Amino acid sequence: MAGTVSPLAPARFPDLPPVRGVRFAAAEAGVRYKGRTDVMLAVMEEATVAGTFTRSATRSAPVRDCEAKLPLAEGGPAAFLVNSGNSNAFTGRRGEAAVAGLCAAASGLLGIPGGRIFTASTGVIGEPLPWERIAAVPPTLRDRLGPDIEGAARAIMTTDTFPKGAGAVVDLPGGTVHIAGIAKGSGMIAPDMATMLVYVWTDARIARAPLQTLVSAACARTFNRITVDGDTSTSDTLLVAATGASGVDAAGEPAFAAALEAVFRDLALQVVRDGEGASKLIEVQVTGAASEADAARVAFAIANSPLVKTACAGEDANWGRIVMAVGKSGARADRDRLAIRFGDLWVARDGERVPDYSEAAASAYMKRQELVLGVDLGLGEGQATVWTCDLTHGYIAINADYRS
Amino acid sequence: MAGTVSPLAPARFPDLPPVRGVRFAAAEAGVRYKGRTDVMLAVMEEATVAGTFTRSATRSAPVRDCEAKLPLAEGGPAAFLVNSGNSNAFTGRRGEAAVAGLCAAASGLLGIPGGRIFTASTGVIGEPLPWERIAAVPPTLRDRLGPDIEGAARAIMTTDTFPKGAGAVVDLPGGTVHIAGIAKGSGMIAPDMATMLVYVWTDARIARAPLQTLVSAACARTFNRITVDGDTSTSDTLLVAATGASGVDAAGEPAFAAALEAVFRDLALQVVRDGEGASKLIEVQVTGAASEADAARVAFAIANSPLVKTACAGEDANWGRIVMAVGKSGARADRDRLAIRFGDLWVARDGERVPDYSEAAASAYMKRQELVLGVDLGLGEGQATVWTCDLTHGYIAINADYRS
Repeated sequence: MAGTVSPLAPARFPDLPPVRGVRFAAAEAGVRYKGRTDVMLAVMEEATVAGTFTRSATRSAPVRDCEAKLPLAEGGPAAFLVNSGNSNAFTGRRGEAAVAGLCAAASGLLGIPGGRIFTASTGVIGEPLPWERIAAVPPTLRDRLGPDIEGAARAIMTTDTFPKGAGAVVDLPGGTVHIAGIAKGSGMIAPDMATMLVYVWTDARIARAPLQTLVSAACARTFNRITVDGDTSTSDTLLVAATGASGVDAAGEPAFAAALEAVFRDLALQVVRDGEGASKLIEVQVTGAASEADAARVAFAIANSPLVKTACAGEDANWGRIVMAVGKSGARADRDRLAIRFGDLWVARDGERVPDYSEAAASAYMKRQELVLGVDLGLGEGQATVWTCDLTHGYIAINADYRS
Repeated sequence: MAGTVSPLAPARFPDLPPVRGVRFAAAEAGVRYKGRTDVMLAVMEEATVAGTFTRSATRSAPVRDCEAKLPLAEGGPAAFLVNSGNSNAFTGRRGEAAVAGLCAAASGLLGIPGGRIFTASTGVIGEPLPWERIAAVPPTLRDRLGPDIEGAARAIMTTDTFPKGAGAVVDLPGGTVHIAGIAKGSGMIAPDMATMLVYVWTDARIARAPLQTLVSAACARTFNRITVDGDTSTSDTLLVAATGASGVDAAGEPAFAAALEAVFRDLALQVVRDGEGASKLIEVQVTGAASEADAARVAFAIANSPLVKTACAGEDANWGRIVMAVGKSGARADRDRLAIRFGDLWVARDGERVPDYSEAAASAYMKRQELVLGVDLGLGEGQATVWTCDLTHGYIAINADYRS
């Protein structure tokens, strides 16, 4: 599939605002891929770090290591060291030794305590990580440290067809702060977490506790509301580092919270746009549910249904499959109050097809590249939006061949 | 896809033992398909009926009607009237009127009370059922009533590529009884219920309460342990009619219970073998779980994972995806106790790849047409077996085109 970029990809990597206090580098360690970078390093002279991780019961050694280090990540220098090609997941105690080895190597070279080196690995599961190869590149990485965030985004890609970046410039009472982030992920995408790896930096000043609160809330509405295949990675990691280098306080500032969530949403939707084999971006909007949890349940039942996703791929206005997904979701539903729409086009209401239903109009809608599937349950105030992509021959081709 | 029979299909429709007290007929009503039968009728002069149905919150009008009638279905004549091509689901109050109209027409013609006519409809969701067309064929059906159970099996097919039948002859202390059943289903297959439509007849004598107990227990281990796409139909119906025409009592007879479950399992596996686009039959065996519910959760997480199913399609020994599915299942799991095997070939144990892992041996195993994926969680006594099929280009082709 190399060389085939998703038809839903942005035209180019965005211009991201420079974030003071962080430098990036990428290198080729030859973990698995040839002829491309596969290790990225980000070094913060001073940082407060917050994050969220996969809830998988079989989560990887680096995820467990990051989880343990996070509560103490307030102030002082820190680094993110990430490799692609091998996930160091289900590698037993050797996996833990590999993480320790990598952290020790990076710590010695960068002069940053090992407890503040956050690693991540993405790629094949179950194969021992050749960590010595990665440990050999930090000298190169150190020499390359600079502003190239796009290079960092490229080094962490696996089946991704384009590097993902998003940023914001936020004017706060104390001055201007900057946010810039990168992400990778295109398959094994479902909450929690939705995306495999996400790193976001800001030069705002904010303590760990309020930063973690913002990150968790924004993540719940963005990365935990996307799905490509309903499968959850063992390695999903989201880390946000606030360097404070702007000297501007961000805690309690709604504009900062909104900008951070917008960056998350932008990156999350880029992951969906790069969904394996995706040809359409699908937004599922559920309203009128008995609760928000019920709304999310219905939205995910629709977004994960192979029958709904293949209908979208085939541009078939098969809203009966949406009825099926609502019914199987386990959420409270009443057939006679259920209404379904494609964008603004209502196709069913009060438990049956609308009287003036037009197959031609519905079919014409399905030809769009970005679809909105709307469901109103008519029961309460619960609502949720979930983003997914369609299920195509491309997904089968990628996953019947690629060893992930 | 017409004319392409599943590579996993049995060589031919089985010879089924004649069940005394039931007669079959099929006809062309032209509900949706052309040039094939699409209505089946089964008439029992005397029958006790038990069954189970989809738990979908948007289940169809005929399902709701059958649910209401079942508690009174003890003794007296009864009939099953089934059409394919239109599911009469999400058709609002008109759907209920259609069921009433069909039951009235069949009742008048057959001299069977409307409360003992069990209908079912399978096919497209959300389009009004042209029930008058179906109501017009009972005279033809009545004239054709006879022993042709294969004809009945063919009339209820939708995307099925072969008719499904199974039977048993059981020697009980009081004499010999016979069991014969048919099923249809190949997509939108997941508990509860697994299969869309299943009808089983026996000439054993058994009251409704013990028959229902047997049916529910056997269903839990067969039709509710299969999945093709994780999608649950709005129309799934399983009905078992005991005519008592053999004069032989079956209540409390383990041999009868075992034979009934064997017929269920045979039909359930035929549904999986006809899974849309299936090229491999996959049996997921989970042992060592903390509970049976946890075992089933893990087994379904594996069986429904698009990444596991595409790996099987690609004959890729990608056991890392099984680790992923175990992790996301929500069941209790401990990485360091987890073991995974393909058939008898252990590939991972104690949380990592086995020392003598052979990619060649694992890959050779994956080339089989019938695969066993085994997981031992090493925690307790809970176990469950689930059957599924792989996810192929065929599934995409069928579902991106077919309006179901």
